[in-house]
Amino acid sequence: MTAVESVGEFRFECGESIDDLRLAYETYGEFDGDNAVLVCHALTGSQHVSNAPRSEDHEPVTDGPDGGAEAADADADADVGTGVQTAGQARAWWDDVVGPGKAIDTTEYYVVCVNVPGSCYGSSGPPSEGPDGEPWGTEFPPVTVGDWTRAQRRLLDRLGVGRLHAVVGGSVGGMNAVDWAKHYPDDVRRVAAVATAARLDTQCLSLDAIARRAITTDPNWNGGDYYGDDRPNPDDGLAQARRIGHVMYLSKASMGRKFGRRAAGRGAFGDAPADPTDRFFPYREVESYLDYNADSFTARFDANSYLYLTRAMDEYDLAAGYGSDTEALAAFEGELLALSFTGDWHFTVEQSRALAAAARDADVPTAHHVVESDHGHDAFLVEPESVGPPLRDFLADGVDGRAVRDEREESDGSDGSGGHSGGPDRAPVHASLFPG
Amino acid sequence: MTAVESVGEFRFECGESIDDLRLAYETYGEFDGDNAVLVCHALTGSQHVSNAPRSEDHEPVTDGPDGGAEAADADADADVGTGVQTAGQARAWWDDVVGPGKAIDTTEYYVVCVNVPGSCYGSSGPPSEGPDGEPWGTEFPPVTVGDWTRAQRRLLDRLGVGRLHAVVGGSVGGMNAVDWAKHYPDDVRRVAAVATAARLDTQCLSLDAIARRAITTDPNWNGGDYYGDDRPNPDDGLAQARRIGHVMYLSKASMGRKFGRRAAGRGAFGDAPADPTDRFFPYREVESYLDYNADSFTARFDANSYLYLTRAMDEYDLAAGYGSDTEALAAFEGELLALSFTGDWHFTVEQSRALAAAARDADVPTAHHVVESDHGHDAFLVEPESVGPPLRDFLADGVDGRAVRDEREESDGSDGSGGHSGGPDRAPVHASLFPG
Repeated sequence: MTAVESVGEFRFECGESIDDLRLAYETYGEFDGDNAVLVCHALTGSQHVSNAPRSEDHEPVTDGPDGGAEAADADADADVGTGVQTAGQARAWWDDVVGPGKAIDTTEYYVVCVNVPGSCYGSSGPPSEGPDGEPWGTEFPPVTVGDWTRAQRRLLDRLGVGRLHAVVGGSVGGMNAVDWAKHYPDDVRRVAAVATAARLDTQCLSLDAIARRAITTDPNWNGGDYYGDDRPNPDDGLAQARRIGHVMYLSKASMGRKFGRRAAGRGAFGDAPADPTDRFFPYREVESYLDYNADSFTARFDANSYLYLTRAMDEYDLAAGYGSDTEALAAFEGELLALSFTGDWHFTVEQSRALAAAARDADVPTAHHVVESDHGHDAFLVEPESVGPPLRDFLADGVDGRAVRDEREESDGSDGSGGHSGGPDRAPVHASLFPG
Repeated sequence: MTAVESVGEFRFECGESIDDLRLAYETYGEFDGDNAVLVCHALTGSQHVSNAPRSEDHEPVTDGPDGGAEAADADADADVGTGVQTAGQARAWWDDVVGPGKAIDTTEYYVVCVNVPGSCYGSSGPPSEGPDGEPWGTEFPPVTVGDWTRAQRRLLDRLGVGRLHAVVGGSVGGMNAVDWAKHYPDDVRRVAAVATAARLDTQCLSLDAIARRAITTDPNWNGGDYYGDDRPNPDDGLAQARRIGHVMYLSKASMGRKFGRRAAGRGAFGDAPADPTDRFFPYREVESYLDYNADSFTARFDANSYLYLTRAMDEYDLAAGYGSDTEALAAFEGELLALSFTGDWHFTVEQSRALAAAARDADVPTAHHVVESDHGHDAFLVEPESVGPPLRDFLADGVDGRAVRDEREESDGSDGSGGHSGGPDRAPVHASLFPG
């Protein structure tokens, strides 16, 4: 059950306000006053983080302007929120990690996950209903990761949650998690920043900009005004954006292993695009895979939301307003776990290392746990066996948790042969990223 | 002066034929019977490899069906060849490497560079004139790297060149160079394969497919039929394809160093795309750079040619028809230099290493020369100081050339600390690829 709560007037970082920010969220487990864990979703994720039983009572402690929560069945691809273009709820995106007896144990913690403003799973955003009863479209204010953090704080207030035991997030959700340590340094005990960075690098900024251009040059995008049953969506552009994103989420190694150069056989999804050279050259398995994924993505995600959320990710800079990452984290009273994956070129090990170093310089107890993996950025979603144990023990015991490794300790104990545990001064990219 | 020579009827690998294959080419230096060097251009390059003086006499020894060569001024962005859509000749793309006194010394060698079939710089291809007097468009036969090799052989016959002293090429031009050793193993003494591979990996296949999709989903592409003054070109799609390609040519390190996350200031090329969040977020320098490059690219390149040539690159597989790369090179009588760059993720060091290993297994005298560079794939174009010496000495003395290093020798002589010279068993990707 997704609930939708109105948190009233909200002023965005850009200076624009809306009268009634609505937030779609899910909660799991029971709140005992000190066990709340906020989980932050990635770019195109949703509040639906787990198939675990929802909390018995997730009604807010104070009523919003509309008089309380509204619920919808998010599991069955039903519309949620304002009923605008939110069909195709993302499936429970971290069900292997969040649930009863799992790493983020919902019998122990009260888990909250909120769809970020600007998204399309029930929270206010471009496809949601604006003041005139029509979808906001591009009149919706630009959003930032900081806006997400402040909106989550507002919702948690309504739920009666003061200090959080932990905030956990991956990818841009990891930026969101780190942003909690910056914006509300007294409000969170432990921050787990998974496969993330203090800011995106130039290469990824470029690919995101290219992805947005794919949407805005689709004639059906129509300046962002494409809502309504009689209007075509900019599916070609959004599909292209997704294909580009998908390549960013995988590694050379995982793509090579999974698809190689094989031609798609019978039963492949999709057709070769209308390309004159099709009459001689094959449609490849990897294309079929990307096309299948892009097609299902256009059925569940809104093109304007994609523009808004990638912008929020691109603009995030932990140091903004402070001068350095360390200064931005100086007031943080909690502990930090940075978890990174050797095959991830979207958010690299080096970026996590730099984030961890900045936190240590701010006297934050910090561990940088490096997972040897060639799954690329997707590793944090598809390797629960790697991600779960350090998360579980970090939530329980902080950086001293049993399964939490810090790469500096590993280096000390290594044989110096340059294995994956390389410390800050070692060349950190691994053969698994780029197979021969 | 670009010359255009008709080499008569040509049957492509796909089985289709055209009556009159025309090839645009340039020659530099004087042929002495044993000093011919064929230089193969990269994907969007042209026959205009150098600003060096052209050969005094580049008339073919036999006349083509049309009665000989046709010349045009390719330097001044003039149309060449059949006059269709070939404006904006690429600038001399390897002028730092090819010319009098340079690494490929035109006072010593007779240098020939041929625009490949399917391209748009005067050789037969989609934008050139077909049998009905109209541009071929998508009726032009699909082309392969093997077709390029056979077409070059045909032209060299007309020029009176039998055995080549060397074939040199970078990127897909390097595939073309290696293909010479496969197709005409007796016809070439030395093959220099620069920043290339025996085949593309899955990640690059994906990005090329996405780039083609950008073109074919541009409504102006119109099934490939967009020629004529009254028709718009698919510039949006071609520009997107180029932006994707451009990111592939650079490294994280070089992009970060050159542009960082800076907003574009006054004088930047282009405008932010029509994106609703522009009112708050900046247009970045890196976007301005990609947009500028994409814009100039659409002025000089043909969208259908881009489809054809990326397909040729994607489909190239040295082992095709043989079962292995080694078997494909078994008959080659010459020597091989594989030159690779540590920051290149389009054609990786590992891929060059595998190519070199296959050649050695075929008893081909081989050197794999690894250049430490963070310039990405572009290194072979922008680092003449790295590329020139090994090429010069390889042309002169083969793999024993003074400046030709083989990574295996380096490893033997190294201190084992895992520096850039890592041998076949060492983790080969370098910190410069992914800066912190």
